[in-house]
Amino acid sequence: MNESLGVADLLGVLAYAELSAFLQLTEDAGQFAPTLSDRAALSELAVSEFGHFQLVRDKLIELGADPDQAMAPFVEALDGWHTQTRPSGWLEALVKAYVGTGIALDFYREAARHLDPSIARLVDEVVADQERSEFAVERVRAAVAADPPAAGKLALWARRLVGEALSQGQRVAAARPELAQLLVEAVADDQAEISRLFARLTEQHGKRMAALGI
Amino acid sequence: MNESLGVADLLGVLAYAELSAFLQLTEDAGQFAPTLSDRAALSELAVSEFGHFQLVRDKLIELGADPDQAMAPFVEALDGWHTQTRPSGWLEALVKAYVGTGIALDFYREAARHLDPSIARLVDEVVADQERSEFAVERVRAAVAADPPAAGKLALWARRLVGEALSQGQRVAAARPELAQLLVEAVADDQAEISRLFARLTEQHGKRMAALGI
Repeated sequence: MNESLGVADLLGVLAYAELSAFLQLTEDAGQFAPTLSDRAALSELAVSEFGHFQLVRDKLIELGADPDQAMAPFVEALDGWHTQTRPSGWLEALVKAYVGTGIALDFYREAARHLDPSIARLVDEVVADQERSEFAVERVRAAVAADPPAAGKLALWARRLVGEALSQGQRVAAARPELAQLLVEAVADDQAEISRLFARLTEQHGKRMAALGI
Repeated sequence: MNESLGVADLLGVLAYAELSAFLQLTEDAGQFAPTLSDRAALSELAVSEFGHFQLVRDKLIELGADPDQAMAPFVEALDGWHTQTRPSGWLEALVKAYVGTGIALDFYREAARHLDPSIARLVDEVVADQERSEFAVERVRAAVAADPPAAGKLALWARRLVGEALSQGQRVAAARPELAQLLVEAVADDQAEISRLFARLTEQHGKRMAALGI
């Protein structure tokens, strides 16, 4: 591997995040979708996550890394996130799909700020797929419009998704300091820039909640 | 819908067969794959099934049919097949993937003999994807070479898969006589041709068992 350990870590966590999102979204589609069209729509989002997995895995191979080895350190944290955030129904599954892919996209964007151009191009390809989760937004908005009290419960659910993601993220950062360092490389000596990073993440999450109407 | 009820039925059963195969293969990949590479390989096969689902669904829409309505009569039989044939481990999952996609391909080929050219082209696209399940053949052959007594158990498993498929197929044929009629339209008055149809299906299954080394 020509690149630093941090880059293999970064691509490894992204690859396993995509692979586990694919598996989980597909399971949710089978378990919770109220109609066959809905099952197909959530499956389509899952399949686009698998396409991202393939892009990131191929990049790891191109860099001379073993994909299984690169992903292994992150299996426990990401599986843990999915175990802690099993949806209890279709709307929770849709909110999780939208919030989960949104957090992943934020992570890609922050990574792209600090990485070499070939990896930034990969990130562009993934981010361009963002509108695929729009069907989730439409369904949740319609459900909340028809049943306004549902909004409060779904907002709590979204906060729990983010809270569990932060908690697993802290475990990963503690176990893989090179990765944490890579993501804050340019900003580690600048407290104001770290504050702006958190402000960006919070702002993006707020936009997603507003889009969902919750 | 401009076409006969039989054609909507045929595309409906193929569409739901692909959608349910996608869901089941993905679940098996998550549950049984011994390595992350294996999980990715079986997921890739699942994703190609989803691509076939999209082709067939789009054909239904083009013909003016509602995909959910076209699929609905076959949900119980296909879900029943999956419930009756839950693999108990990775090798059984691989044999099921290979035998299941093989039976589906035989079904497409027989359908193509009797249908209009635009549907025959769709069938060609699906059949061209056949080599995707070859990884399953390689893994099963290697496992059987390393542990010859495993062959007998897997051969029994494959027979059970076919037996349950025939049993569900008979239920569908009884419930949807238009579909059964479409598939044997050209041959219904010719006992010798029906015998040749069964001979072709048996021969194809025999070839698959030989390829697996079981």
